[in-house]
Amino acid sequence: MAFLFVESTVSEKVRVAILGFGTVGQSVARLVVERHAETLQLTHVYNRDVARKRVPWVPAEVTWTEAIDEVLAARVDLVVELIGGLDPAREYVTRALERGVSVVTANKQLIARHGAELMALSTRHGGHLRFEGSVAGGIPVLRAIEDGLSADRLVRVAGVVNGTSTYILSRMEEGATFVDALADARALGFAEADPSDDLTGRDAAAKIAILCATALERTICPADITCRSIESIEPVDLRYAHELDCTIRQVAWAEAGAAAEPVVAAVRPALVSRKSPLSRVAGSQNVVTVQGEFGGETAFFGKGAGGDATAVAVVSDLLAIVGTSDRAGAEPRRAFRTAPSRVSADYSAPHYVRFTVADRPGIIAKVAEAFAKQDISINAVLQHPGMPADRLPFVMTLERCSETRLDVAMTTIARLDFHVQAPVVLPIFEPLV
Amino acid sequence: MAFLFVESTVSEKVRVAILGFGTVGQSVARLVVERHAETLQLTHVYNRDVARKRVPWVPAEVTWTEAIDEVLAARVDLVVELIGGLDPAREYVTRALERGVSVVTANKQLIARHGAELMALSTRHGGHLRFEGSVAGGIPVLRAIEDGLSADRLVRVAGVVNGTSTYILSRMEEGATFVDALADARALGFAEADPSDDLTGRDAAAKIAILCATALERTICPADITCRSIESIEPVDLRYAHELDCTIRQVAWAEAGAAAEPVVAAVRPALVSRKSPLSRVAGSQNVVTVQGEFGGETAFFGKGAGGDATAVAVVSDLLAIVGTSDRAGAEPRRAFRTAPSRVSADYSAPHYVRFTVADRPGIIAKVAEAFAKQDISINAVLQHPGMPADRLPFVMTLERCSETRLDVAMTTIARLDFHVQAPVVLPIFEPLV
Repeated sequence: MAFLFVESTVSEKVRVAILGFGTVGQSVARLVVERHAETLQLTHVYNRDVARKRVPWVPAEVTWTEAIDEVLAARVDLVVELIGGLDPAREYVTRALERGVSVVTANKQLIARHGAELMALSTRHGGHLRFEGSVAGGIPVLRAIEDGLSADRLVRVAGVVNGTSTYILSRMEEGATFVDALADARALGFAEADPSDDLTGRDAAAKIAILCATALERTICPADITCRSIESIEPVDLRYAHELDCTIRQVAWAEAGAAAEPVVAAVRPALVSRKSPLSRVAGSQNVVTVQGEFGGETAFFGKGAGGDATAVAVVSDLLAIVGTSDRAGAEPRRAFRTAPSRVSADYSAPHYVRFTVADRPGIIAKVAEAFAKQDISINAVLQHPGMPADRLPFVMTLERCSETRLDVAMTTIARLDFHVQAPVVLPIFEPLV
Repeated sequence: MAFLFVESTVSEKVRVAILGFGTVGQSVARLVVERHAETLQLTHVYNRDVARKRVPWVPAEVTWTEAIDEVLAARVDLVVELIGGLDPAREYVTRALERGVSVVTANKQLIARHGAELMALSTRHGGHLRFEGSVAGGIPVLRAIEDGLSADRLVRVAGVVNGTSTYILSRMEEGATFVDALADARALGFAEADPSDDLTGRDAAAKIAILCATALERTICPADITCRSIESIEPVDLRYAHELDCTIRQVAWAEAGAAAEPVVAAVRPALVSRKSPLSRVAGSQNVVTVQGEFGGETAFFGKGAGGDATAVAVVSDLLAIVGTSDRAGAEPRRAFRTAPSRVSADYSAPHYVRFTVADRPGIIAKVAEAFAKQDISINAVLQHPGMPADRLPFVMTLERCSETRLDVAMTTIARLDFHVQAPVVLPIFEPLV
């Protein structure tokens, strides 16, 4: 009887292989081994040069390997993909799904780009595909949207989902320059050696594409989302923003109109009201808000990065698949089920424009004329005293207008000869009415 | 073929009865009829004096009835209980579950008090029981905790979950008196005719009992949770709180230690740092935060009340049950699965104490002596200038100490003869370290 009991316990355990043993991979392994050993059995750890990765707390029976074929040919129920990037992650995930093995991944690039194709593959071969860890680290936002808000029709999803940008902008709020804030972020590990995807918004674009697929049920290509970098922001912008009872964050958002219309999506440094949940993140925190036709605005805050927080998302996905075992319904029902949608950035918002000029009479008249030609109304003009006349920053806030019309006006304005540096244009992000 | 298609579509629909056709019931009906008619079929509306409830937009084939037996004897797949209160809601839900019919409810008192018994009943008879709408209206927090954070071990759950209290305290922040703020809340529909459960914390106690069952997997009786009313708070407290970079909110929380230990749970008006998510709700917004051993702090914001927001939670629960149909896993897996736990309020926190005294020499010495006897350290003494000496408010902040020891000290202090009114004692709520 005892023997039978042991047999049955062992056979009930779900066999898990981890691909990629970096920070998140190690946290996932620890959570599986220390907290969920009664349900999950870690069987393989795959990594390049795997010998240097070995840790003593992983059970002796786990196979350490740098041969992916060995993992994919083995009797494994679940593959956790934490390699990151498109290649070879896409190939490995594809091969696992083709064998009917379920996959959990935290790979935002892979899901944002190939989510629809991989989801179709998982359905065809009877496996599951989950990716909660690919967006906003430890915040269970995909799950909450997909299940908890399933009855609503969501019309917008927005987030501050890039920790590097948030860290830099919150340091600039305290008076630091961009260069100093970036240096600090690097020193503290909040920025990678090459932070360009974080600063330009490409990282956030991948995340908003996944959120868009989940919340709005529209599949979009992340490469179609236009981004603007936070590198043009200066401390003076944060001071003006403060005066307008706002702060500045890198905001990524998507809005769905009618099914035939393109999805409106963009990543922009933007002014956000201090009353908005989007303003209330600092450091490496993330926030995602969704707006529903019935439920209004709901916001989710938490750790956007870090091995342990992301590991909670990954292992919760594993447990969701185990909990629903061979039944349908474990994989996301909403996300990546639709044909690709076009993307437009022609959103409408109030705007903030900061000019830096060699001062002389008539500047505001010329700028105002260019805006008037595009039917854009000026709301206010702000100018701090005591600035040098040969390098004078001043700010105009504009009534709600489309970015496209504003771009036309700004092209005209850019040709005028009083600029000391290029104007900075930021939308003022507001809740939908 | 066309006929067969219609047949099969009709037979696939899940038959839904709504008990209670108030604000939430009407929103649920509208969401079912207008948005989810391909999946859900509204068959019955039960209400006392049902004739006065009839609305034209409900399909003609729906049965309107004030005879509960008619509903419970009919072929119904799902019962939505929105009557509220314990009786007769408990009886009706029990009878539905005993017939194997699944139940979705937004009834916090019913679930907080009888969740374990009803959950056992639903399991025994093969039905499902879900109650997302019973806590924090439209915020899908139970779902997010239960599924999205299932891999973590959650150690604390806390919330600002009573809209009436939040409205009053945010109005007092702006300078209103308690009496005026309450009158405004009544005028705007934020407070019921008898708001005592909201002000004393009994309403929040029911909600934290449900959150405790879901997040900490500990079943507690809401009557065992001690509450303190917000009625003792005065505008001067909000001014002092502001000076300490805090605000005051009615905070409900629960912390789980070892399985054999009691759950620490309480509802208190408390100082919360302006940096805490708990400080960032105003009006009828709710916030719930959970702290996990691995994932750190995650916060959920949204509409805490209102027919439409709660209806999203209710109908999402319906869709979850339909989506998993006759499989296990639709009902909460964590909540109300354990034997009842004892509850203690012996938490430890820094504290704020406001005295109102007829001033004379030696008061601080006497108070300090009473605190010292209980090993409680004083952190700071705050006193605004220009207050009348015969009715002088001053504040002491105390280092972290247990409420029990503080109560002993306060009993001694209350016997001293310089008080013009009873001291106000508020914990300063901080994240767990």
